[in-house]
Amino acid sequence: MKQVTLAAPVGHKPVAGDFQMCDVATPDCPDGGVLVRVVHLSLDPYVGSQIRGRHMGEPAPRPGIDPIPGAIVGEVLKSHDSDVSEGDWVHSMQGAWQETVALKPGDYRKLDPDLAPLAAHIGVLGMPGLTAWAGMTQLAKVGLGDTVLVDAAAGPVGGTVGQIARIKGASRVVGIAGGPAKCAIVTGTYGFDACVDYKSDGWQDQVGPALGDGLSVFFENVSAEMAMMALTHARPYARGVLCGLAAAYQSDVSTGNPLNMGLIIGKRAQLYGLVVYDFYALWDAFVAEASGWLRDGELAFAEHRVEGLDRAPALFELLMNGQNEGKAVVTVAPEVV
Amino acid sequence: MKQVTLAAPVGHKPVAGDFQMCDVATPDCPDGGVLVRVVHLSLDPYVGSQIRGRHMGEPAPRPGIDPIPGAIVGEVLKSHDSDVSEGDWVHSMQGAWQETVALKPGDYRKLDPDLAPLAAHIGVLGMPGLTAWAGMTQLAKVGLGDTVLVDAAAGPVGGTVGQIARIKGASRVVGIAGGPAKCAIVTGTYGFDACVDYKSDGWQDQVGPALGDGLSVFFENVSAEMAMMALTHARPYARGVLCGLAAAYQSDVSTGNPLNMGLIIGKRAQLYGLVVYDFYALWDAFVAEASGWLRDGELAFAEHRVEGLDRAPALFELLMNGQNEGKAVVTVAPEVV
Repeated sequence: MKQVTLAAPVGHKPVAGDFQMCDVATPDCPDGGVLVRVVHLSLDPYVGSQIRGRHMGEPAPRPGIDPIPGAIVGEVLKSHDSDVSEGDWVHSMQGAWQETVALKPGDYRKLDPDLAPLAAHIGVLGMPGLTAWAGMTQLAKVGLGDTVLVDAAAGPVGGTVGQIARIKGASRVVGIAGGPAKCAIVTGTYGFDACVDYKSDGWQDQVGPALGDGLSVFFENVSAEMAMMALTHARPYARGVLCGLAAAYQSDVSTGNPLNMGLIIGKRAQLYGLVVYDFYALWDAFVAEASGWLRDGELAFAEHRVEGLDRAPALFELLMNGQNEGKAVVTVAPEVV
Repeated sequence: MKQVTLAAPVGHKPVAGDFQMCDVATPDCPDGGVLVRVVHLSLDPYVGSQIRGRHMGEPAPRPGIDPIPGAIVGEVLKSHDSDVSEGDWVHSMQGAWQETVALKPGDYRKLDPDLAPLAAHIGVLGMPGLTAWAGMTQLAKVGLGDTVLVDAAAGPVGGTVGQIARIKGASRVVGIAGGPAKCAIVTGTYGFDACVDYKSDGWQDQVGPALGDGLSVFFENVSAEMAMMALTHARPYARGVLCGLAAAYQSDVSTGNPLNMGLIIGKRAQLYGLVVYDFYALWDAFVAEASGWLRDGELAFAEHRVEGLDRAPALFELLMNGQNEGKAVVTVAPEVV
């Protein structure tokens, strides 16, 4: 089968040329687990840190040896798990950039293929969606009358944050994204009230007017600097979800990502560190709720999709540069064969 | 009457010589308000910022003209308020370093003199106590099984934080204070389980063992650096109350008081900015609860008390240097005349 590995150790922001395609033996089905035909592969920013050995203390995959990790949706080819049958669909965070994956018990969740488009399970119903949902419903507890600001708003986390906020009763939802095409996704596809283009001149002066009467909730995906900018627009007792530091993940300079404690006190801010892993136990509950929103047209998503495993490296380079428009999905194989 | 003013503008950490004693006319009783004989005057760290014009955007008191602000407990000499009679006791945050104060309606609260020692109303039942209570019960919501760390623990805020935590069910309470005498107050008078002396060698290595299994709540009075130290000892989802930056108040160098956003995320910390002014509406409710704890011997306090307004400047200098032991109180006049 085809598999993608690193061509050499990566010490820089990853580019397409850092990857190579190999032919390797198809794995066996593990005891108690399943063998899965990969159909949709998720490309996510954290993988950029993972392949540099900078994610959660995990070692980087070895060039030419270890596959590149990634979330997948696939069809079960063989099962040693009595709860799963051949032909069932599963989602796994323990997938890889390859055509077939062997998954150990506990490393996958069975999917109902009729609930939503299959690729949605690595996007709006996948880890990005769960992240957004956890931040809005479990931490910030967004509700009636909230005004919400989120950055990286064209992406699957930020875009879902704003939509869930709206569904839960927020009165105004504002995004920050880079460039007119992304802002069009934010206000068009996702239906935010406004989007500020951080690549435009004087964008900082547009945030206050876009919010109106200040924010009561913000969700930070990008940097401590952006979180502080958000706080300057905060009403007293605003809640902030600290989720990501995308600007720092591929940087070679560590700034310490400083938040100003005096400003936090002055604003009486309430800040919540979010790591989505903590919410995996709620994944099925989230999917049950959010698939209803999808069906009812309350929750939309945008995909930047390519076909074929060989196109994963180029899309990953776009993702690393923030040039993807919507959730990065590699469709490795057709859904129906 | 006697009044203390600044001798000259203050641009440094205040010392006793920055103050002067004047003789001024006793004020009149304001319309709808009261004229009060000052009995106990509170010296608080925020006043050090106030007299340098660095507090909440308020202007500094003018040398030789404006009195030094301070919370007081006193006896009503004259009343134009139908709810208050001559001889009643009041507490006010709008007092001053002088023998008699004129208080406008709304700027004082009537006290029950039988509830607790009168000076307690500027300490453990005053703003320091309310600060501690708000942080523990309204923000961190401390409860059964919590392990709590607080710095400036010999002071009236920190000492009350730990005791309220214990009353509310915390299983372990650890303080940080400077020097053996202060640590003796923390573990002796206040009954904390342990106190780490930050002036001793290798004190950082003592914090982890003192906590045991990490902290679930911390209350920060001193600096962003101390808050980050606390966070390194935090269990996931620890709650941190960000209350004060005492180390920065008298400093001439601004560090931005940086908190590391990556560490906050990694620890899934929940941080709450606290400004005690927001909780003034709950003051009577707090006093009703805490005076019961005082009576029952569950809540103790330590005072560093001097007699006579002329001794306020020297005690204030001690306070600015962290050399007071317990709540700084100036008894301006006897309770019974």
